[in-house]
Amino acid sequence: MNEFEFIARIRAQAESRGSRSDLVRGIGDDAAVLKQFAGRETVITTDLLVEGVDFNRDTSPPRLLGHKALAVSLSDIAAMGARPRWALCSIGVPPQLWDSSFLDEFYEGLFSLADRYDVKLIGGDVSRAAEKFVVDSIVLGECENQPPVFRSGAKVGDRLFVTGALGAASAGLRLLERGARINKATKDHEWPSIEALLLRQLAPEPRVGWGLVLGQEHLTTAMIDLSDGLSSDLHHLCKESGVGAVVRSASLPVDPLVTELCGRRALDPLMLALHGGEDFELLFTVAPENAKRLPRKVDGIGITEIGEITSKGIRVSEGARVWKLKPEGWKHF
Amino acid sequence: MNEFEFIARIRAQAESRGSRSDLVRGIGDDAAVLKQFAGRETVITTDLLVEGVDFNRDTSPPRLLGHKALAVSLSDIAAMGARPRWALCSIGVPPQLWDSSFLDEFYEGLFSLADRYDVKLIGGDVSRAAEKFVVDSIVLGECENQPPVFRSGAKVGDRLFVTGALGAASAGLRLLERGARINKATKDHEWPSIEALLLRQLAPEPRVGWGLVLGQEHLTTAMIDLSDGLSSDLHHLCKESGVGAVVRSASLPVDPLVTELCGRRALDPLMLALHGGEDFELLFTVAPENAKRLPRKVDGIGITEIGEITSKGIRVSEGARVWKLKPEGWKHF
Repeated sequence: MNEFEFIARIRAQAESRGSRSDLVRGIGDDAAVLKQFAGRETVITTDLLVEGVDFNRDTSPPRLLGHKALAVSLSDIAAMGARPRWALCSIGVPPQLWDSSFLDEFYEGLFSLADRYDVKLIGGDVSRAAEKFVVDSIVLGECENQPPVFRSGAKVGDRLFVTGALGAASAGLRLLERGARINKATKDHEWPSIEALLLRQLAPEPRVGWGLVLGQEHLTTAMIDLSDGLSSDLHHLCKESGVGAVVRSASLPVDPLVTELCGRRALDPLMLALHGGEDFELLFTVAPENAKRLPRKVDGIGITEIGEITSKGIRVSEGARVWKLKPEGWKHF
Repeated sequence: MNEFEFIARIRAQAESRGSRSDLVRGIGDDAAVLKQFAGRETVITTDLLVEGVDFNRDTSPPRLLGHKALAVSLSDIAAMGARPRWALCSIGVPPQLWDSSFLDEFYEGLFSLADRYDVKLIGGDVSRAAEKFVVDSIVLGECENQPPVFRSGAKVGDRLFVTGALGAASAGLRLLERGARINKATKDHEWPSIEALLLRQLAPEPRVGWGLVLGQEHLTTAMIDLSDGLSSDLHHLCKESGVGAVVRSASLPVDPLVTELCGRRALDPLMLALHGGEDFELLFTVAPENAKRLPRKVDGIGITEIGEITSKGIRVSEGARVWKLKPEGWKHF
C-alpha cells in the first residue's frame, strides 16, 4: 500500500459516513472546502514536515524552514484559487533546540512570509519531541464571489499550463545531497546559480498571486500545486477529473539554472522537471477559448502551455516519440 | 523560558501585526475564533501529540490513541462553548508501522469518536517519520446564535465549577508508569478500578455536551478545559480574565477511584486533582445569579462548585488554612 492508496482508503471511510450540505469538498484535493454562506467558502489545508524526512536541520537554516513550513500550505491554498487568510502552527521541539535561537529564527521566517500575504497566525500547539523537530502548518483561506478550483474539473481538449519553471527544487535537493550548503558560499563562479537552486529547495515561493488571479477570473477548470512532482501531480489531477493528458516535453519550462548546472553533474534536466518534487508551481487546465484571456505574468512569474487534456492515458510527446508518463514523483511510502 | 512564556512571545509577535475585523480571537484561548458572519463564528484548534512525550506506543493501544488524538481537540472546542464540526489529521509514520494494523486501528478509534459527535474528517497529511509516531489533530467548530466562551470573561464573585471528577487521568498515568497495561488484565480484585483509571488517561472523554449547553444557554462567563492540570489551567483562566480565585479543597470532586487506589500507592489524591493533567474536564465560571440555572447533569456527567473568583491571587482553602496555589501542572518545557 503506498500513501496514495492509504489516503484513498481513509477518504472512502470518511465519505462512507455521508456528506453534509455545508461540506463542499473533503479529502482528495489540495485543501478541504467548507461552505460558510453563499458566495463565500473557506478552504483549509494541513502540511506536516518531519525532520530527517521532509527536511534536514543541518542543511536548512531555521529561518528558511519557517518560511517553507508556511509556504507549502500557502501553495495548497493557491491551488484552490483562494486567498490565504489564517495560519496555525504546531511544533514538536527537541529539548536542545528549546533554549537556542532556533525557534526565534524559525518564526522570523514564518512571520516574514505571512506578512507578505497578510496571513495572520492565530493558533498552534507546542509539544516536546525526542530528537527530531516536527512542524504541522495549517492554513485557512477564503474564496469570495467565486467557487474554489478543484482538481476534478479538467475537460478533454483543455490546455495544460504550468507557472514558473520546473526542476529547480529537486536540483537543489541533489546539490544538498552532494554537500552544497546555503550558508557556505564557495568562490566557484557557479555559486550564484547553486545558491539560487538551493533556495528553490529550501525556501520555495508559493504562487499565491497566480492562484488568486486564476480563481477570481474563472480562467481555469482544474488546478493542483506541484509538490510531489509534475508526473505524480498530473496523475492526481487526471484521476480526479477522469481524463488523460499529453505533455510536450519540448515545451516544459525547465529552469535554465537546472540546464546550466545539471550537465556536468550527470543529472537529467528533463527527468528533474518531470519527476522532481517541491517546485510548488501551479499546474492548471484552461478551456481553449479562455487561453487567450490568461495574463502573461503575475508577480513577475510567467506561465507556459505544456500540453493538453485527452480522454485517457498520461503521456509525454518527445519529438516523434510518445511515451507513457508514470507517476514517479516523491512518495513517503 | 517555559512554554507559556514562549507562547506569550509568539502571541505578542502575532498581535503586533495588527488585528483584523474578522478575527475575534487569536492565540491565547482554547481555540482561535473567526467571524464568518453575524451570529455564526468558526473556532479552530490544533493539538500535536508526539510519541515518547505525549504518549507511549507500548502503553497506548492504537485505537485508543486515535480516540485521544481527536478527543483533546474536541475538548478545546467544547471549552469555547462551540459545536465541533470538522476534523483534519496529519500523521508522521515510522516505516515499521506503515505495513502493520496500527493505522487501521488508529483511524478506527478516531472515526468512532468523530461519529459520536457527527464530526467529519475532511483532510490531513501523511509524512514518514524516523522512529516516533506523531499526530496533529485539527478541529473546527461553530458557534451558532451565541458568542464563544473565552477564558477572559470571569468576574469577581463568579462561582467556579468543574465538570465530572478530577485526578483520574494522572492516576492512570502513574499506574502506567508502574507497569499497569490496559491489555493485560490482572486477576487482582482491583483490576476493574485500575482499568477505569487507565482508560481515563488513554481515552479521555471530551465534555462536548456540557460545552454546548454552557455556550448556548449563556450560562458561563469564562471556560477552559483541564489539559495541563487544574492549578495551571486555573492560572491561565485567571490571567486572561485579570482576576484571582479561591478553590475549596474539600469541594474538589476527586474521582472516587483515585481515592480508593492511591492510598496504598503513596499517591496524594488532592495533589493529583490539583495538578494532574489530562482530565479534560471543563473548568468554568458562572455569575452568582445564574448558578441555579445550571443543569445538574449533561450526558450523565455532573458538575461541582469548587470555589469562586476573587480580585487577585490564586489560593486553596483547606479547612482553616489558606495557601497559594502554584501552577504545577504539566509543562513540556
